[in-house]
Amino acid sequence: MDLSQPPLPRIDGARLWSRLMSMAEIGARTDGGVDRQALSAEDRAAMARLIGWGESIGLLPSFDTAGNLFLTLPGASEGATVLIGSHLDSQPTGGRFDGVFGVLAAFEVLETLHDRGIVPPRPITLVAWMNEEGGRFAPGMMGSEVFSGHRRLTQIGAVTDAAGVSVATELERLAEAFPGVPRIAPGFPLHAYIEPHIEQADHLEREALVIGAVTGIQGKKTYEVTLSGREAHAGTEPMERRVDAVQAFARVALAMQEAALQAGPDIRFTIGRVEVLPNAPSVVPATVRFRIDLRHPRNDVLDRTGLALEAAARAAAAPCIAEVQPMVDAPANTFSPALRRAILRSAAARGLPATELLSAAGHDARHMAPLAPSAMIFIPCRGGLSHHPEEWAEPAHVAAGAQVLLDTCLHAASATRDKGDLS
Amino acid sequence: MDLSQPPLPRIDGARLWSRLMSMAEIGARTDGGVDRQALSAEDRAAMARLIGWGESIGLLPSFDTAGNLFLTLPGASEGATVLIGSHLDSQPTGGRFDGVFGVLAAFEVLETLHDRGIVPPRPITLVAWMNEEGGRFAPGMMGSEVFSGHRRLTQIGAVTDAAGVSVATELERLAEAFPGVPRIAPGFPLHAYIEPHIEQADHLEREALVIGAVTGIQGKKTYEVTLSGREAHAGTEPMERRVDAVQAFARVALAMQEAALQAGPDIRFTIGRVEVLPNAPSVVPATVRFRIDLRHPRNDVLDRTGLALEAAARAAAAPCIAEVQPMVDAPANTFSPALRRAILRSAAARGLPATELLSAAGHDARHMAPLAPSAMIFIPCRGGLSHHPEEWAEPAHVAAGAQVLLDTCLHAASATRDKGDLS
Repeated sequence: MDLSQPPLPRIDGARLWSRLMSMAEIGARTDGGVDRQALSAEDRAAMARLIGWGESIGLLPSFDTAGNLFLTLPGASEGATVLIGSHLDSQPTGGRFDGVFGVLAAFEVLETLHDRGIVPPRPITLVAWMNEEGGRFAPGMMGSEVFSGHRRLTQIGAVTDAAGVSVATELERLAEAFPGVPRIAPGFPLHAYIEPHIEQADHLEREALVIGAVTGIQGKKTYEVTLSGREAHAGTEPMERRVDAVQAFARVALAMQEAALQAGPDIRFTIGRVEVLPNAPSVVPATVRFRIDLRHPRNDVLDRTGLALEAAARAAAAPCIAEVQPMVDAPANTFSPALRRAILRSAAARGLPATELLSAAGHDARHMAPLAPSAMIFIPCRGGLSHHPEEWAEPAHVAAGAQVLLDTCLHAASATRDKGDLS
Repeated sequence: MDLSQPPLPRIDGARLWSRLMSMAEIGARTDGGVDRQALSAEDRAAMARLIGWGESIGLLPSFDTAGNLFLTLPGASEGATVLIGSHLDSQPTGGRFDGVFGVLAAFEVLETLHDRGIVPPRPITLVAWMNEEGGRFAPGMMGSEVFSGHRRLTQIGAVTDAAGVSVATELERLAEAFPGVPRIAPGFPLHAYIEPHIEQADHLEREALVIGAVTGIQGKKTYEVTLSGREAHAGTEPMERRVDAVQAFARVALAMQEAALQAGPDIRFTIGRVEVLPNAPSVVPATVRFRIDLRHPRNDVLDRTGLALEAAARAAAAPCIAEVQPMVDAPANTFSPALRRAILRSAAARGLPATELLSAAGHDARHMAPLAPSAMIFIPCRGGLSHHPEEWAEPAHVAAGAQVLLDTCLHAASATRDKGDLS
């Protein structure tokens, strides 16, 4: 922030906090948490409340056909917008901050600019992405994936929840609920994208920091591995004749971890889920099926390690047969260094202790990064706890996050992409 | 068999088969199997049918207070009896041969001797042991354990089934159902014990043999091992900080198997059941709990190997904590070599291909072996299948087993223990 310029406006932390607590009433659980799953009646009620707040200060709402909600503050010129926000939907046993904090921080930015009569050089648009969580309709991040062209509308429309209700059906219901709100095609030019979010880990809290400028989201690959042996009687089958899937699993688990560790200290390799069949104490097990969770900030390392894991599994499994099925493949991304610097400058100017840090969890920002210079602003959450009714962020940290969003957003709106100000 | 002696009588295979099929009606399942669990109404009905058959040829029934049923054919002199038989109860999805074949083969022996007016030199007593299977009241072999002093009546009386009904209650019901049958204290002097049974493995079938003289029942130890680590986020926790219970399990599983293999080719070591907690794909697992099934024909080897396994688990688990909980400890036993020779002689004289073989499964005979010279006679069962509605034994094999029982039983009744004829 150039302190020789007129000071940037201050957001209203108390107003933002009261809006957060107001939103937490929608889908409130008796345990203090929130159940506001994607495209549910509660999700629509949250959108209606947000649209109402926007209309009271003249912000124009719109939906795209993927169910993403936008509120636009017009700029001095038209053209590519600075998109800010996150998501309103929650996990079934969710908290009061995951997602909704980013949306309401964005709203606080728009309202502060509106109140001060500040017209930004280009439009600033709030977004509430459809179905980030994926708890009801899996997998999540549907809205941002359709917006970015990563998935097609017809693909997500066919996904159904546990009751058999499809996303397409719920998107029609959404359109019927807001007949007066314009519906546009997904995807429009972005000048930049900035998403505030609680950290969902305890790095900031442990270091007594308030602001995290996120360097990127680490890449993630998951695999399902099936080891097939031969069932036999534990009391009779000689050891040398056995094709024991649990013993093969033991060899494979160690060999895969050893292969993963070749990638250095940033690798994360986990076998978190294991299923043994038939899982009877006196039966030599026929089958072990397990999941691999592999993460690294660099895609080349992730790809190379994934191949090494597959080879290690096949080699160590013999005489069992190893089948390695790739599941999730979410590449790593790096957020705009210019925006990260802008976040750190804002935090420094506001006296907020800050750091750069990596996001271990995925966010909609992952899908905006290929479209425009993108960034994420993290604030601490208590004990790193998230996706839990006791999820909590301090009011001062919520306000700090919104303030840094405002500062960074105005910087982005003024900056020129072709001069590299944002890259 | 001394062929210079008058020929031993032939049993009636057709009569025995028809009694087997008659018993299979009691607790018959629609899939051809039998559900006649211990101390159920069906079990009592089977006892009633057997007592009725016995009374029709003048055999005196008695119960002991542990619910074991006896039918005695008096001998020329009183004194220690030759006990022959097995059990009438079945698994819930049991077959028509496991247990009941041994009881009815014993009945066929008594009836054949009765029909020919043969008075054995000492009493021959049929036994139907109470609750061998343990499917309803666990663990099984209750009747033979009380008879042998291995467990006390009060201990088994307190065991309840899934509906909360106790063994004590069902034993009272049994006494009420047979008011005229004398009840004796468990345990009386045995001269010898011989139990016929289907093999429950496919060794005889594969080798085209009809009779197995069982050398012994291998010893079995089971353990529950718990490895305790620390739950963490799969995306964030650095590898070097993890206390990963699944990785510890992999090390422990290999180390334990390696320690077990030191015991040579007769060892059987199996990890058949594994439970991972919380078993979520993206969570470094906190706990792995698993079962060890360890078997060997020699108790010294079994004891030594058990200790080696515990040491291997503790050493390989670090930094996780290993807790090793012994569960079952059933020592190996060796059956009487003299009776095994008598079985093989009978088979040879009758033209039945035979072999010595080890029993991998446990039987009531395990508890008789410390009391008196004991033996088991195995006949083949199709595909080694048992504890299954499709369990099957050929009528000719059923008859062969009863014939060898008769021959061996008469040999035992005539033999003198103090001359070593039975040891």
